[in-house]
Amino acid sequence: MTDRHPVTVVGLGAMGREIARVLLEAGHPTTVWNRTRSRADDLVARGATRADTVGQAVAGSPLVLVCVLDYAATRELLEPVAAELAGRTVVQLTTGTPRQARELAAWAAEHGIAYVDSGMMATPPMVGRPGSAFLYSGDEAAFSRYRETLELLGTARWFGADAGLASLYDLALLSGMYTMFAGFLHGAAMVGTAGVSAAEFAADAGDWLRAMTGSLPHAARFVDTGDYTTDVQSVEFNKSALDVIVQASRDQGVAADLVAPIQELLARQLAEGHGKEAFDRIIESIRPRPA
Amino acid sequence: MTDRHPVTVVGLGAMGREIARVLLEAGHPTTVWNRTRSRADDLVARGATRADTVGQAVAGSPLVLVCVLDYAATRELLEPVAAELAGRTVVQLTTGTPRQARELAAWAAEHGIAYVDSGMMATPPMVGRPGSAFLYSGDEAAFSRYRETLELLGTARWFGADAGLASLYDLALLSGMYTMFAGFLHGAAMVGTAGVSAAEFAADAGDWLRAMTGSLPHAARFVDTGDYTTDVQSVEFNKSALDVIVQASRDQGVAADLVAPIQELLARQLAEGHGKEAFDRIIESIRPRPA
Repeated sequence: MTDRHPVTVVGLGAMGREIARVLLEAGHPTTVWNRTRSRADDLVARGATRADTVGQAVAGSPLVLVCVLDYAATRELLEPVAAELAGRTVVQLTTGTPRQARELAAWAAEHGIAYVDSGMMATPPMVGRPGSAFLYSGDEAAFSRYRETLELLGTARWFGADAGLASLYDLALLSGMYTMFAGFLHGAAMVGTAGVSAAEFAADAGDWLRAMTGSLPHAARFVDTGDYTTDVQSVEFNKSALDVIVQASRDQGVAADLVAPIQELLARQLAEGHGKEAFDRIIESIRPRPA
Repeated sequence: MTDRHPVTVVGLGAMGREIARVLLEAGHPTTVWNRTRSRADDLVARGATRADTVGQAVAGSPLVLVCVLDYAATRELLEPVAAELAGRTVVQLTTGTPRQARELAAWAAEHGIAYVDSGMMATPPMVGRPGSAFLYSGDEAAFSRYRETLELLGTARWFGADAGLASLYDLALLSGMYTMFAGFLHGAAMVGTAGVSAAEFAADAGDWLRAMTGSLPHAARFVDTGDYTTDVQSVEFNKSALDVIVQASRDQGVAADLVAPIQELLARQLAEGHGKEAFDRIIESIRPRPA
């Protein structure tokens, strides 16, 4: 009926379920395991095999995808079945730090397990659809072997042999997303005090933020060259704008938690004598100082 | 040579200069004033009239655009010439709080000055080009009279008679922009620790953030309905992701100032028992509580 290789999905949260569904639909014999058994019910109804134990789950497939809460949960599940995993490939989809990825890669290497770490640039409904991207790093031979399968989930991008790199890049992109969403919510709270709906604000904010992403390459040029010379958007000018935003927020009864840190970083740059340089110089207050 | 009405621009910072240039190019007899006289040199070379005093500047035109550092500077400049301003229209382009806009509107009303407040949704190079939008509120008759002129600067949007509304909406959108830029810089600092250039990261971040703006209407629905029921992106799930981002940032030597507040708001929602509800519920921790 199919010549697709078997695959195992450990962890059926929102992402794990979508991933299993996409693999099933593509014709992969799919074994699933989840601590709460009932989370697998609808997948079993679609043809998935339910494993009773993690050991049973990994025994069925050369490729094991792990998508659980964190690395601690991952290790708790995988360490007891290290022997069964030897010779197989583990793709870790669980969100974790680059350090955790490197540590798990080292553990896998000790046990003869091929290890690929991943950062998922997708929300559950995006899995398998345009716009979904998965970042990978670690064991390149294993990645190449299963790339076609992994491409079912979203565009597969390779970042190299350092298992921590995919995660680092993923978390960096997620940082941008979270701060953008948080800033949107701060703005929605502000206009909400004047009775403007979040829906109305979302339409404008979407247009505005999409337009503003056009400035990111310009910001990057400042950062990459370390030359923050500008005659347009200085630290001083933007500090003044942030002062106004923070004050206006408080006037309206909106807590400034999400915008005050930007004001504070600008104040620090100003105090260090960089008032005439570009806004983007605030990165110098957060990134590691050159040794 | 032209039947365009005269216009005065007070304040020739980066925005004021672009505004004066666009008005001049459209054929408006344009009078300019700036504390540092030499900032007007190139505009004078293009045909602008340089005023020696603010009184002289406002006497020449029925429409006076003010674009200076803040409201304190605005009042310092305008209060001594209130008599000359009577019967004219002041459009305040300077960034300020809604409260400051309302106070200045009240002062203007006392002196028989028509007052329109504005929020500028444009960077200097955008003035007069597609994508530039200026928000207005205050004296509607004055706005209508000069709308055609104001449209030269960017799409003119009307927010109503409350002089503070344009500013509130403007600052809300700017909050979204600043947090997005700040989040980008945080991400650039993270990948920078692995030698990835900000330019490379900007290309990916731009694509990713543009895609993610597609989720704003969904976020707005939670906020507007007050129903944060979700089975996808819970407070608990996102708190865990923020924990990872903050830890990974620190592991790489990147200060977490710009992302830690999101983690803290999620922690507060979690502590209040809303772990299973949607991420966007963090807005309830910053907006005014219903009376």
